[in-house]
Amino acid sequence: MSTPTTTPVTVLGLGRMGAALAAALVRAGHPTTVWNRTPGKAAALAADGATVASTAARAVAASPLVIVCLSDYDAVRAALAGADVDGRVLVNLSSGTSEGAREAAVWAGELGAVYLDGAILTVPAAIGDPSAQILFSGPAEAYAAHEAVFGALGTPVHLGADHGLASVHDVALLGLMWSMLNGFLHGAALARAAGVPAADFAAIAERGVGTVASWFAGYAGQVDERSYPDDDASLNTHLAAMDHLVHETGALGLDAGIPRHIKDLADRAVAAGHGGEGYAVLAELLFRS
Amino acid sequence: MSTPTTTPVTVLGLGRMGAALAAALVRAGHPTTVWNRTPGKAAALAADGATVASTAARAVAASPLVIVCLSDYDAVRAALAGADVDGRVLVNLSSGTSEGAREAAVWAGELGAVYLDGAILTVPAAIGDPSAQILFSGPAEAYAAHEAVFGALGTPVHLGADHGLASVHDVALLGLMWSMLNGFLHGAALARAAGVPAADFAAIAERGVGTVASWFAGYAGQVDERSYPDDDASLNTHLAAMDHLVHETGALGLDAGIPRHIKDLADRAVAAGHGGEGYAVLAELLFRS
Repeated sequence: MSTPTTTPVTVLGLGRMGAALAAALVRAGHPTTVWNRTPGKAAALAADGATVASTAARAVAASPLVIVCLSDYDAVRAALAGADVDGRVLVNLSSGTSEGAREAAVWAGELGAVYLDGAILTVPAAIGDPSAQILFSGPAEAYAAHEAVFGALGTPVHLGADHGLASVHDVALLGLMWSMLNGFLHGAALARAAGVPAADFAAIAERGVGTVASWFAGYAGQVDERSYPDDDASLNTHLAAMDHLVHETGALGLDAGIPRHIKDLADRAVAAGHGGEGYAVLAELLFRS
Repeated sequence: MSTPTTTPVTVLGLGRMGAALAAALVRAGHPTTVWNRTPGKAAALAADGATVASTAARAVAASPLVIVCLSDYDAVRAALAGADVDGRVLVNLSSGTSEGAREAAVWAGELGAVYLDGAILTVPAAIGDPSAQILFSGPAEAYAAHEAVFGALGTPVHLGADHGLASVHDVALLGLMWSMLNGFLHGAALARAAGVPAADFAAIAERGVGTVASWFAGYAGQVDERSYPDDDASLNTHLAAMDHLVHETGALGLDAGIPRHIKDLADRAVAAGHGGEGYAVLAELLFRS
């Protein structure tokens, strides 16, 4: 367990997310230095006790722990050009790909910094709440040394030493998020077209989502084994119900692109001989080999 | 509130779901009569105390409340041909479209039955648990008279008098479920391809899903208003991250159909001038008018 102490920490980038990170660090009592490319975004943070640095180099010099939250990895390198990161722990929470994260680790290592890549799985307003998952990948020692600081931002999770893991998980979870939101918006549109407020549908949907999420662990085990027994409903059974969704969508005059995409995937799996297996067999269409 | 009493109830159809419904009714102490087209499926239920009827007509005659759980609405009519449903409450939990439900209500009314349509939002193994949502639509009086019986099956919700509402919600929620599962399976495949057990991803995903579900109410309000302010991240910001998902998917050698579908929808909305609005503006692509 970490001791309840404070660590000087610098935050580079005060967009919505960076500002939320800095505010949470200030609230947790960590001496916080902030910098943004365009000035003026730091006023509220300064009023709460953050130190505003005039350059990124000065901001980096102020703390052994530097958290970067910019639009992408190119912006990270541009911001840090001329800063002395030697001996510091550089935590990059900007979003990108695993390849970009591994390249950034090499670049930071050449400058003498210890590099952690990270990903934030929530919106700025939730930063500081335990529901906010923040993923990290890179050296375990550097993560452990600053876990208490990361805990001020939400619930930190260390995935492993491979710097690319945070990005892989980030995009994987974003894909799940977009899929969920698209399915939800389609359902909300159906409800509204049927004369029911989308808000009423949302309440039922929020409870239903918990039921579906409770199946993830079982389906993940099937994906790991690449074996998909029909434990609840076969893909053939699902496919019959997909016809109802496509039909209902057309009858209510809505665009059927989302249901058709769902049905196409299932059709392909059934055509490949998987109709008698469980739903998770669709993963086999995603693995190309 | 309902009084803690019991009601003779008949269940027609003993597939996985019908058998689970009957078992939950027996457990709750309701005198339960069961019937299935092909015999032999009722042995376990009989051992637990259910009465097995030799014909559907005899099963219907045994109870004022008849719950039907068959493959589709055609099977419901075939099973009930020759049965006297006059004066009974007929609850159809078979899945179908809202059009089919409204037709079934007319048909049942002509036979003198009071008709409720319903939809079960979970798997057979969860029947009887409060997490199991069961939706009903049709006359409020008939629903209220038997709400206590329905409560033995899970958490019942009455949507309104329009018989089609349960089916609309059913397919809308199934669409959300399939979207979620597809997004999850894509993420699990990404994790596995990156060398991480899908089971590890599932744990993070299950927590992440709760965060996304907590946004439903807000987005539903936007859909109801058809106004989509950029409260958290603009569609343009989402689109940039979608590129990372497509790229990562390709780099790990996986099929990119799911990410491309996600990105295509966002691309269309941005092309239509919605890039500066919030994510829920995608609903506007679903409404054709």
